[in-house]
This record gives sequence, C-alpha cells and structure tokens, in this order.
Amino acid sequence: MTTFTPTEKTRVRRLPDRARYDVESVYGILDSAFICHVGYVIDGQPFVTPTAYWREGDHVYWHGSHASRALDSATNAKVCLTVTQLDGLVIARAAFHHSMNYRSVMIFGTPVKVEDDEHKMRAMRRFVERMYPGQWEGLRPVTRNELKATTVLYMKIEEASAKVRTGPPKDDAEDYELPIWAGVVPVEGAHGAPVADPRLAHDLAIPDYLANLSHLGLKK
Amino acid sequence: MTTFTPTEKTRVRRLPDRARYDVESVYGILDSAFICHVGYVIDGQPFVTPTAYWREGDHVYWHGSHASRALDSATNAKVCLTVTQLDGLVIARAAFHHSMNYRSVMIFGTPVKVEDDEHKMRAMRRFVERMYPGQWEGLRPVTRNELKATTVLYMKIEEASAKVRTGPPKDDAEDYELPIWAGVVPVEGAHGAPVADPRLAHDLAIPDYLANLSHLGLKK
Repeated sequence: MTTFTPTEKTRVRRLPDRARYDVESVYGILDSAFICHVGYVIDGQPFVTPTAYWREGDHVYWHGSHASRALDSATNAKVCLTVTQLDGLVIARAAFHHSMNYRSVMIFGTPVKVEDDEHKMRAMRRFVERMYPGQWEGLRPVTRNELKATTVLYMKIEEASAKVRTGPPKDDAEDYELPIWAGVVPVEGAHGAPVADPRLAHDLAIPDYLANLSHLGLKK
Repeated sequence: MTTFTPTEKTRVRRLPDRARYDVESVYGILDSAFICHVGYVIDGQPFVTPTAYWREGDHVYWHGSHASRALDSATNAKVCLTVTQLDGLVIARAAFHHSMNYRSVMIFGTPVKVEDDEHKMRAMRRFVERMYPGQWEGLRPVTRNELKATTVLYMKIEEASAKVRTGPPKDDAEDYELPIWAGVVPVEGAHGAPVADPRLAHDLAIPDYLANLSHLGLKK
C-alpha cells in the first residue's frame, strides 16, 4: 500500500488542495511527533485526550493506567487520533488571509487492548527506544506488577489523511502592492538543557540519548 | 465564579491529584496557547480537528470557511475542546515512571454560530489582536464578502478541568539509589526570525508586533 483511499471520514476537512493520502506523508508526520489527541465518544459526548503515542508499521500505540476511563472508553470503539505539528505563523496583508503552516494527520480506527505480556513489553520498549534511543537496557527492569497496572492500546490505521500547509501568505491579487508587511514566522519545538533530578544519588553525566532530540521534532 | 464544578465529564481523566478546576488555571492555560483540538461527533464517529482559537470571558471562539464540514458538524452539537502545552520530558529510573510535564485543559460546551456581522467582526479583530497586538488597524480592511465566507463559532465554557504535571520524576523509593540518570528535559515552543513574503512590494521593516510572541507561548 502506498496511499490511503480518501473516504467520507478523511475528507471531513476543507481545502482539498492541502490534503495528502500517501503513506509516506501520513507516517512521516506520525513519526515526527510524540503527542497526539485521541477522540472518543461516551454516551454521545465526544472527549479529546492528549497522550504520548508511537507507531509500529500500520498500527499506532498509546498507553496509560489500567484504571484510565479514557483508555477503557476507547477500547473496541471508534476513535479518531490527530497529530498536529505547527511550522509557522502566516501573516497576510488582510486579516482573513492570516493562516498557519502546519503538518497534521487524522487517523481512524478501532483500538484494542494488548493482552499478551510479551507484546506489551515489546511495545513499551519500542516506545521508550523511540523517545530515548539506547536507554532501555540501562533502566531498572520492568516488573510484572508494572505490566499489569498498565493498559496499552493499539489501533490499526484503517483510514488516514494528512493535511499540510507550507509557504508564504496567499493574498488577494490587488493587495500585493500595499505597504503592509507579510510573511511567515517559523515555529518549532525546542528543548533546553536537561535538569537532573535533585534526588540523583550519584554524579552521573547527562546520557547520550538526550544529546539530540530532533527525532522528537525538538531542536536544541 | 472562581472554580468550575467537577463533573462526570471533567473527571474522565485519571490521576485526580493533577486536576485543577479553578478558573485561573483553566483560563491561564487557554490564554497561553493558540492551537486547540476540537472533538465532535458525526453519526457516532468522533472527529478531532486542530484549529486556532481564542477566549473572550467565559467563551471560546474558533473559525473557518463557511463550507467547513467540521464547523458545521460542531454547530449546536456537543463538543470537547482540548488544549495541551508540553513543558518537559520526564525521565525516570524505571521505564514505566517516564512521564511528561504539561498543562492541559479540557472544556465542554455546545458551540453556536456568530450570526451578527458586527459580532463576527469584533471576534475576528480580537483574534488578530491576540495573535499580533496592534496589527489590525494597519491591515487591508475586511470586506463584506470575507465576513460572509467565514464561519465563526463560539462556545460557552459549560464544564472545564485543567490537568497539570510539574517537577522531577517520581520513582519507586528503592530506585533512587540506582546509578541511573533521571531528570527533566524542558520543552517549549520557539519562533525563528520572521521571513518576509518574497512578493513584498516595499522595503518594510519587520513589525513591532512580531518582536515578542511570548503571549503565544513562543520564545525567541
């Protein structure tokens, strides 16, 4: 599969010229971020919960406490998961042409619980290694109780669309001559210097896996 | 009113110790961001759409094309609007204690369309001035057609809760002695130098309203 098929659901968003359905765009955006917003329904009422997530093949994963009502309500239910990366503020010569540059993905599916402990462990390891490559082996090993207390959901990406805006503002033809500044302010996520836990018991160097977090969309 | 009343809906999220219901926390987080995720339901299927938004008193506003199915589906319907600001990556000594520092708000209400042109104009002006203080008067004036082609929704904040995590990791008591680095990597939004539209017709200085975007949660 190289593209997702546009469906009634994934066409919900206006401006079809910004829509993309190719797997490369969808996966590329999914892999560039690590916070998503999960939409689910309880008794006709929509809920939107932010959470960390990760992708493996054509599935996305997220997790939380086994007591989480959000996870429980999303299990075996229709879910929309949206990821948004803001890239810039687009400033036009006319207020209504102001816009934003962004990459976003909306995916639809029906999450199920990871029931098998080995699968759960593999999934969690992948999550940690995706955030902090090379860290897993050095951590205090996972206990059986931790596995038990954690719910991991995974969802096959059944329908997906990306939406991307790039470039300068699009003003009305006759407005380009006006003496009004227009352009783009680039926006990105940034991380600061790691702050050691005050309770750190040893004089430990900051680990290598924190040297470069660009895979998380964060510049230094 | 100084606090929102916790309800079944706003208690959906686990970890009640991180929950806040005071108006100051809820409005503070709403006013520190400018992208939200709106959840709405079409035929039992949840959708989550990212959009710019702004607050005025106890209402939030957002807007889009009058042809937007997302806006149309949210009108007079149950909506959940969520705002999430990531503040840090929390790295623990054990994988399952990894976390994130964040501020988020989940609000519930039933948006309606702004029908009155004057109200719509006021709302849009407020939106622009909130993003770019002092810019409005210098822009090419809004036309009647632009007003007509734009749908503005506003929603009374009927129920709301904030959820906030701050501080270092919380590890198991016996793990603090381990020689494993733990701490927090601060995360924030940043903006780069403004890039003028290549079609800028005059030699215009970068406007003052772009000098400081900290009100948008963006550091330079």
